[in-house]
Amino acid sequence: MVSKNQIKLITSLQQKKFRKQYKLFFAEGVKVIQELIDANYELNDLFTTQNDFSNLLTGKTHAVTQTELKKISALTTPNTCLATFSIPENIKPDLKGLVLALDSVRDPGNLGTIIRLCDWFGIETLLCSEETVDVYNPKVIQATMGSISRVSVIYTNLENELKNAKIPVFGTFMDGKSIYNAPLPKEGVIVMGNEANGISSSIEKIVSERISIPRFGKVQLTESLNVATATAIILNEFKRPI
Amino acid sequence: MVSKNQIKLITSLQQKKFRKQYKLFFAEGVKVIQELIDANYELNDLFTTQNDFSNLLTGKTHAVTQTELKKISALTTPNTCLATFSIPENIKPDLKGLVLALDSVRDPGNLGTIIRLCDWFGIETLLCSEETVDVYNPKVIQATMGSISRVSVIYTNLENELKNAKIPVFGTFMDGKSIYNAPLPKEGVIVMGNEANGISSSIEKIVSERISIPRFGKVQLTESLNVATATAIILNEFKRPI
Repeated sequence: MVSKNQIKLITSLQQKKFRKQYKLFFAEGVKVIQELIDANYELNDLFTTQNDFSNLLTGKTHAVTQTELKKISALTTPNTCLATFSIPENIKPDLKGLVLALDSVRDPGNLGTIIRLCDWFGIETLLCSEETVDVYNPKVIQATMGSISRVSVIYTNLENELKNAKIPVFGTFMDGKSIYNAPLPKEGVIVMGNEANGISSSIEKIVSERISIPRFGKVQLTESLNVATATAIILNEFKRPI
Repeated sequence: MVSKNQIKLITSLQQKKFRKQYKLFFAEGVKVIQELIDANYELNDLFTTQNDFSNLLTGKTHAVTQTELKKISALTTPNTCLATFSIPENIKPDLKGLVLALDSVRDPGNLGTIIRLCDWFGIETLLCSEETVDVYNPKVIQATMGSISRVSVIYTNLENELKNAKIPVFGTFMDGKSIYNAPLPKEGVIVMGNEANGISSSIEKIVSERISIPRFGKVQLTESLNVATATAIILNEFKRPI
């Protein structure tokens, strides 16, 4: 069963201000929920139409009907389960190895896809400017497909953070050096910019290495790549064996 | 002004069966519309709240109010203009150079992003299985950002088409040869599979070169990359200078 108050609480968590107020977020589907549990996210409540999580403390598990699940779900076609988790404390970033930084990425699907890329390429720290879409937005959580449990996503004042970085700061610009020729070391921060405006001017000033992804099309009209596909290409170039 | 019949026609074009019946599709926004016009797509009607296309024949241009535009738009926040175009005849593919083929890609955003990638990497032919999402779906058209005008998207019986291909057929599989070691020639068809199920078994039989994108994450739990980011990485590997 799910009470009226629980419905009210969970649907409110679709909004950032309530996630912040209650320090809670929710995830849907066995796979994503199980990966969050395995990664030691603190489970608050689990609502399920099936007996998928029999190993959990019964006090936290609530059997619900498909109709009840639909009332709390953010999905058009709800899964079989939904769980609320505590939002972990923001930790202080440790800038070493390869770090990815997002300067105001706004689309939840892009952030989710980028987190999957970090997981794939072994990038453990993802810095996000405060204007970047909230990682606990249900659309981001679902788009990560569980990868969120293996990547440390840290919101920070990106300008202050990067100013003090002891490692090189890479940024993608039209006039940058080709990623096929530029030295791409094992240590550095790679900044990816906003979908429409790219890297902001305050961050551009801190970038020490300007790089670019060369175009191959005959007609040079393609304005830009989607930020997630550009991130895929750049991470691949940094990580691939030479 | 936009008539009741025009509203009915245009909103019906959000569905594939009506696009097929009327042989029409629509696009929104100055940039996308202008690129389609420049690429010689046959313009049917243009509805605009501004005077953006003064160079067009007046018979095809209709001044509309923002309220009227909202009635025909597929966007939550309508742009300033919407145009209907004739769907070009499906042409016979010419399999030479590098060709991308999609085996049942279902998400409109993924297809749109992949068309932008083809444009970026100079891939001129994109084969789509008949189960692949329709390229004239308004969500695909908007996601291409105009790149649709520079990539030839051809729907075909992929199995028959690839069976007779005179060039190697590449497919991505977990047990494939690493893209960092496999020979990646200048000529070949690269098949990308469905979001959930990958490449279908009938197409797998035709694949002559099995390749894979190596994972770098410590924990080997990341199930897969999004099909658009995987396409980005693979096209980059085929096209980058060695």
